[in-house]
Amino acid sequence: MKKIAIYGYGNIGNGVAQVIEKNGEIIGKRLGEPVEIKYVLDLRDFPGDFMESKVVHDVDTIVRDREIEVVCETMGGVEPAFTFTKKALEAGKSVCTSNKELVAAKGPELLRIAKEHSCSYLFEASVGGGIPIIRPMNSSLVPEEIRSITGILNGTTNFMLTRMAKDGADYEQVLAKAQELGYAERNPEADVEGKDAARKIAILASLMAGKTYPYEKVMTKGITRITAQDFAYAKALGMQIRLLANARRNEQGEVTAFVEPCMLPSEHPLAGVEGVMNAVYVQGNLLGDTMYYGAGAGKLPTASAVVSDVVEALRSKNRTIPVVWEDSEAMTGDPAELPAAFFLRVPHASYRDLRRALREMDLVEIPGVLTEEVGVLTETVSQNELKNKVKDVIFKSVLRVEGLKQQ
Amino acid sequence: MKKIAIYGYGNIGNGVAQVIEKNGEIIGKRLGEPVEIKYVLDLRDFPGDFMESKVVHDVDTIVRDREIEVVCETMGGVEPAFTFTKKALEAGKSVCTSNKELVAAKGPELLRIAKEHSCSYLFEASVGGGIPIIRPMNSSLVPEEIRSITGILNGTTNFMLTRMAKDGADYEQVLAKAQELGYAERNPEADVEGKDAARKIAILASLMAGKTYPYEKVMTKGITRITAQDFAYAKALGMQIRLLANARRNEQGEVTAFVEPCMLPSEHPLAGVEGVMNAVYVQGNLLGDTMYYGAGAGKLPTASAVVSDVVEALRSKNRTIPVVWEDSEAMTGDPAELPAAFFLRVPHASYRDLRRALREMDLVEIPGVLTEEVGVLTETVSQNELKNKVKDVIFKSVLRVEGLKQQ
Repeated sequence: MKKIAIYGYGNIGNGVAQVIEKNGEIIGKRLGEPVEIKYVLDLRDFPGDFMESKVVHDVDTIVRDREIEVVCETMGGVEPAFTFTKKALEAGKSVCTSNKELVAAKGPELLRIAKEHSCSYLFEASVGGGIPIIRPMNSSLVPEEIRSITGILNGTTNFMLTRMAKDGADYEQVLAKAQELGYAERNPEADVEGKDAARKIAILASLMAGKTYPYEKVMTKGITRITAQDFAYAKALGMQIRLLANARRNEQGEVTAFVEPCMLPSEHPLAGVEGVMNAVYVQGNLLGDTMYYGAGAGKLPTASAVVSDVVEALRSKNRTIPVVWEDSEAMTGDPAELPAAFFLRVPHASYRDLRRALREMDLVEIPGVLTEEVGVLTETVSQNELKNKVKDVIFKSVLRVEGLKQQ
Repeated sequence: MKKIAIYGYGNIGNGVAQVIEKNGEIIGKRLGEPVEIKYVLDLRDFPGDFMESKVVHDVDTIVRDREIEVVCETMGGVEPAFTFTKKALEAGKSVCTSNKELVAAKGPELLRIAKEHSCSYLFEASVGGGIPIIRPMNSSLVPEEIRSITGILNGTTNFMLTRMAKDGADYEQVLAKAQELGYAERNPEADVEGKDAARKIAILASLMAGKTYPYEKVMTKGITRITAQDFAYAKALGMQIRLLANARRNEQGEVTAFVEPCMLPSEHPLAGVEGVMNAVYVQGNLLGDTMYYGAGAGKLPTASAVVSDVVEALRSKNRTIPVVWEDSEAMTGDPAELPAAFFLRVPHASYRDLRRALREMDLVEIPGVLTEEVGVLTETVSQNELKNKVKDVIFKSVLRVEGLKQQ
């Protein structure tokens, strides 16, 4: 019998308990031994809950118990999760987490402590919920020089953009709908401003670089200014609008990362990712393109990912599962210098200014979408260069275009 | 310095050498030690080739060399690959293979031998080329009761079906095109008759069951009878036609597997998989739906998958990487008993017979595609039951419909 503990009995913590309850027989068979939850750490009690008898309030009860081999950290936030995780690792217990804030802030430090104590720090559930992406990055993609990672990493915004495209609805309407369905929080800022996706792409960028990409350096733009008019143009162009999180190497070999709403050709695999689903598209130098798709959030999918890490950790007792992520900062470049085509919308009155500003560039006009304005596609140019040239022009919209064949 | 060997210097064997040559520095960094190919086993010599000096003709040179930790088996076929693989495993060397014939025929026996000698038998490259699917099945999806696996597992036929859909071309035309481009062999039987996909889904069905699903039991139908007319109906229905390989549990808990051309709603993630790309769509009871997408074949993608197994094996010296696949036959059910909707095409003359045969069923007529015949969608029914009812009706086409919302 393998004994584990859960730190934090919120939504995901309860999900972990449910996964072990529902699929315990299969898990035990595949592991070769049953798994039992011995403790659940929480400040609260849970009278009547099926985990009621396991609840403890003192972290040291868990840390001091030699029977406990693995701890699931599903508390969220940096503290006290960081202190409690360190305690478990220092006691030689592996920790499996869904806590993206802690991984983005303290990942390499916790990985080093795990290594020093011959146990593992695993975080499959911290990015993309139930989508296996961290483990492929650490094993399947090890032979690859990864050129680019592009993800739809936030289900709330993807649900909203999908509904705007299908219903022709405006931002405020779909936000209200998402809140009504429980997909968006009352204060939706972390989702709609791209901050949640920024933390996740920072983790993937760090794994790509083998060093920390600080999430503060992710150039982040949310979806709050996307309108029904933008979708009318996207449709005319055979494109979709998606909030993309991207990490790639620039020509100098530096890693750059951004989160921003982009146009994407409808035939691109990421363009078909609808509703609350998420996906991560990875380009390797030998493997070519691979994509990982699934439920990017949700209690049971996320908890299933935590438990997959638990099984890996139990299979690797007294041995550290390798994660290449050094505790130093990656060489980072400026995402605003990356070349891309841009979609621009200007009022008729400004179109002459735009043509003059970009006189050396071929502009593809998008015919007949709205009468009072003009939509164009630019040639490939960096965002900084474009900004510089068009600084006197008034725009209704500027969207990066990703996934074109030549890129 | 870690030393490895390659069995068989054909297309994939040469690919493995190229992957190590091109990305050796990255691989060494991630592994913590460089990897060197010490031997290449082949009957032939390769004068002028960059591996020329490594070529040996006697398998025992490799098996007896204690420095060799891992062997890549890229010979293909059951013999002598089986004998040579056994020899390596018995000497405690892990074997990483791209050989689906051998895995489908002898997988559990080789896994047992590996376990007895504290080494690993790994076969990521045997299914889906460069798509990580075997490792997710063995680790990420371990907490899941897998309900269904549906794959596009053959690039040749997917290329042909994509071209038929886009160009309105007929089967013979696209086969000639595929042969011209080198995607189809001169004798295309293994691809177009579904046999290649059948071996691959047999491997995935075995991992799903934890016991062998014999590939002879995969109900297999190829794409040779698909016509441009079928695509005209698919278009009218908002569907795609894909050669799907499916493994699922029936109501009795038995595993069933089939390969056959199916209609699939265009919004299903598998419907967007075009050309030579492959994908595997997995439904778990807690995780929900996940999909893995990438290059299903090709020298470097497949070789990269072999090398990812090499790194795993080197990281796990003297330890067997667990694969749950017992050496006994799974409880198998009859795929012809699975419920599904069917698309049927009959000449006008037979439509009255069809309506009479299926009088208790709602048939949805597909309006206005071809004047000389009728296309309909049935209610959900098993293939056996349908066959039984309509045995006196003459059909132009019968296609299973997968991926409908209620399934």
